[in-house]
Amino acid sequence: MRWDGWGDPARAAEKLPGGVKLLLTAVLGHKPRRSGTIGLAEVELTGPALDPADEQALAAVVGAEHVRTDHDTRVLHAGGKSTPDLVRRRERRQAVPGAVVLPGGEEEVAAVLRVAAERGLAVVPFGGGTAVTGGLAPEAGGHRGVVSVDLRRLAGLEVLDDVSGEATFWAGTRGPAAEAALAERGFELGHLPQSFEFASLGGFAAMRSSGQNSAGHGRFDAMVTGLRVVTPTGTLDLGRAPGSAAGPDLARVFLGSEGVFGVITQVRLRVHETPVERCFDAFTFSDFRSGADALRRVVQAGTGPTVIRLSDEAETAVSLAQVGSIGKALSKGCTAVVLHEGPAGSAGARREATVAVLRAAGGRPASRKLAEAWDHGRFGAPYLRDTLLEHGVFVETLETATTWSRLHVLRAAVTGALAEGFGAAGARYRILCHVSHVYPTGASLYFTVVAGLGGDMAAAWAPVKARVNDAIMAAGGTISHHHGVGADHAPWLEREIGEHGLRVLRAIKRELDPDAIMNPGALLPPERRPDGPA
Amino acid sequence: MRWDGWGDPARAAEKLPGGVKLLLTAVLGHKPRRSGTIGLAEVELTGPALDPADEQALAAVVGAEHVRTDHDTRVLHAGGKSTPDLVRRRERRQAVPGAVVLPGGEEEVAAVLRVAAERGLAVVPFGGGTAVTGGLAPEAGGHRGVVSVDLRRLAGLEVLDDVSGEATFWAGTRGPAAEAALAERGFELGHLPQSFEFASLGGFAAMRSSGQNSAGHGRFDAMVTGLRVVTPTGTLDLGRAPGSAAGPDLARVFLGSEGVFGVITQVRLRVHETPVERCFDAFTFSDFRSGADALRRVVQAGTGPTVIRLSDEAETAVSLAQVGSIGKALSKGCTAVVLHEGPAGSAGARREATVAVLRAAGGRPASRKLAEAWDHGRFGAPYLRDTLLEHGVFVETLETATTWSRLHVLRAAVTGALAEGFGAAGARYRILCHVSHVYPTGASLYFTVVAGLGGDMAAAWAPVKARVNDAIMAAGGTISHHHGVGADHAPWLEREIGEHGLRVLRAIKRELDPDAIMNPGALLPPERRPDGPA
Repeated sequence: MRWDGWGDPARAAEKLPGGVKLLLTAVLGHKPRRSGTIGLAEVELTGPALDPADEQALAAVVGAEHVRTDHDTRVLHAGGKSTPDLVRRRERRQAVPGAVVLPGGEEEVAAVLRVAAERGLAVVPFGGGTAVTGGLAPEAGGHRGVVSVDLRRLAGLEVLDDVSGEATFWAGTRGPAAEAALAERGFELGHLPQSFEFASLGGFAAMRSSGQNSAGHGRFDAMVTGLRVVTPTGTLDLGRAPGSAAGPDLARVFLGSEGVFGVITQVRLRVHETPVERCFDAFTFSDFRSGADALRRVVQAGTGPTVIRLSDEAETAVSLAQVGSIGKALSKGCTAVVLHEGPAGSAGARREATVAVLRAAGGRPASRKLAEAWDHGRFGAPYLRDTLLEHGVFVETLETATTWSRLHVLRAAVTGALAEGFGAAGARYRILCHVSHVYPTGASLYFTVVAGLGGDMAAAWAPVKARVNDAIMAAGGTISHHHGVGADHAPWLEREIGEHGLRVLRAIKRELDPDAIMNPGALLPPERRPDGPA
Repeated sequence: MRWDGWGDPARAAEKLPGGVKLLLTAVLGHKPRRSGTIGLAEVELTGPALDPADEQALAAVVGAEHVRTDHDTRVLHAGGKSTPDLVRRRERRQAVPGAVVLPGGEEEVAAVLRVAAERGLAVVPFGGGTAVTGGLAPEAGGHRGVVSVDLRRLAGLEVLDDVSGEATFWAGTRGPAAEAALAERGFELGHLPQSFEFASLGGFAAMRSSGQNSAGHGRFDAMVTGLRVVTPTGTLDLGRAPGSAAGPDLARVFLGSEGVFGVITQVRLRVHETPVERCFDAFTFSDFRSGADALRRVVQAGTGPTVIRLSDEAETAVSLAQVGSIGKALSKGCTAVVLHEGPAGSAGARREATVAVLRAAGGRPASRKLAEAWDHGRFGAPYLRDTLLEHGVFVETLETATTWSRLHVLRAAVTGALAEGFGAAGARYRILCHVSHVYPTGASLYFTVVAGLGGDMAAAWAPVKARVNDAIMAAGGTISHHHGVGADHAPWLEREIGEHGLRVLRAIKRELDPDAIMNPGALLPPERRPDGPA
């Protein structure tokens, strides 16, 4: 990936699409203009370099060729891909890890952690590098240095049990490689977050990823039947059976642990036959509330779509602008995109049931090209964000979830906090929102924010984001449904799980990682000392 | 419930049904004969009584009338309802808690735990008293005494969110009371373990209960959207959203925690509209293997039955004996019972899809009376066990789960271990088995064992059960899918979750319950001291 942007450089767009440019001019009040960026070679590295003795100790474990201290590799492991991350990449000086280590097996991961603990080095596990909440920052947490442990060599399908529909992968396997390996055997994982093309399965597990097949294979944690984790004090192998009453399900302690207890090295996953039927539908609702109510009825009826999502009026309008002239007449309402899929002959009845519920709830059928266009462009948004940032336009996403009964209160709280925050900053803005994931008891709300933030965009955004996080907590939402906690949401974790929930996480951390070398910047807020500053 | 047996004394049967008697005579080689039992009043109490000062301190919290130290109440809180429990109730001397405390609210639970910690008393949380793995034993764990904390006053529906389909109950609510409260509002929980009529929702959560609506609402943990737990060092309120990426899902740390971290006081649950359609079907398969394969195909196709279970040849024969003359011609094979249910008009299409899969996999339709008879008698088995025990016939159940690909190896391992164990004991026996719960990746196997164990039946059973547990672990099964760990399975927990998994549980325990007062006999095996005996 680009050091200062998303994805494959060959797919980056220098120019904004005409429709988007027009829209932006209307929103921001001025034409966006392209500014320069800094080349990878021009970056000045900050952050402690490793001692030669540290390098030698790591090389003794993984081989000298797998301890990388060159300029480019260190910069490419400097963090994730949130908008504040990318804004910071407009600066010449970059905090980077002292070395990037590429272990070739689980034993090597364990040995790297031992070396790091002995020598006082922090470890940041690195999968695909797509994190968007600051969890990949090279934070030393009081240690002498930081080692990024890149899992790319721990990749591939280890076992496919095609009777049980269970696949065991090494954690460094990227999304497309996993799907390719399964497709050869007639199976599919179907977990498609926006980061899919670059993120790793271990990263999905560590972050409790949410995928765009939002009603079918949306929750990665729900697909995990077992995992292996290497901690500084031992290796765990969890998940003996598809269901169990043998005490708490300890795999759940590591799903969402964001590398702070150890390195997830292997994941065992439920897979399913490659679907051969794929039926897209689109519906229009007069407003967001009636659309959300229709989605609720579908998921509570259990009709079984793979995807069902609803864009609000603003997002519907932007989507239409992007796909050109399709369905202009519909642009006043809210569009829902629906996908049913499965083995031959299996999707029809479910689709009919879903359509009946949506129609009864006020949905009007719209061109299915809207749904197909969404499917076609589903991994494109981060590229567009890069182009927008290069044109000085701030764009960021944020998300939360709650019960159906609180959904609209939560949406209003987030929208209100954004309005207040941008108002205080004197910025013009546009807020887009969609219901991305549905559950019988509630749903996730996903917001895209476009704003004209002048000067230091990251500094201007921080208080707006803080205001939104406070509003989410006050309205009963979760601090994150998609993106995880990382460093960015860590100050809100105590309000999410309580003082005693935090104590549980810290107790597990102390037990498994007594030297606190694992990913010091992520998940857990810095401990308050009774006799010192926070 | 009876002090020395299951359930409502009015429903206990003194006599064995004729068909069962005949079958037993054939299996055991002699006619079973009824023996006497010990009346509640004749029981001699063992185990430390509380000091008057302890009683006063507890009474100061909950009121004197809610600290029960009378003979009968103490005996009725002496343990659970496993067969070894009931065999021990044939003895005059019974270990009992020093007092039974009935807190009237969450604050009172917290205060009781504080008093217990201060005064050095162990606490055994008590829901419905239906535990079958020894987790309710009044084990002091080195403390001065044992207090049973009975949650019956912490009962009832607190809130029903009928839009979100989410109900918040106090943990002491019994199954039938929960369903009655929901039914008034048109909702259902649908979780029906065999203990349903007496067990509490908090108990279901603490034990990760498995219900007989095995494909629909089988896993209680999957229905929990949030819970509150009072620990000796603080109260946790977990589960902010239907889905989240805000770190590990800490509610899962307490689901299955069996009272060793604290007392679950409240559970929030996904509920659904009361089904109005209920369609039963029965199918016969030529053998267990082809039947299990058919069930696998159904759950992997996702056709959505509420119940689907398969009895092996031996269990099929016994079921037929109990329901009389139905389907005599079928008694050579294995019977599968299937239920589809849902709102009006919703079950038909799913049922058709299931039936098509079962037929294609070799299932022959059988009289649906077989399924209706199973439904009618689903809560009757524990009463029959009482009558069998009173006739000197040993009967016990055990269960496990694994992936589909390992299912038959696991079944053979359990059957082999039972045969060896009973062989070593010189006992005649019969093993019945069914697939009780199905998942896309695997299934649960539930065994019922009937044996002629003379003398001290509990002592004769212990080595057989140990042999079975070893065999389950060696074959890759889980030590329990239904019944939990308790005291009985605790020695096998390390093989289930590993040395480091056990360290995680102990670290959480130390943090939340530093005086180790919570349920000392359950879940966690006694810690090995490096310089002392195990």
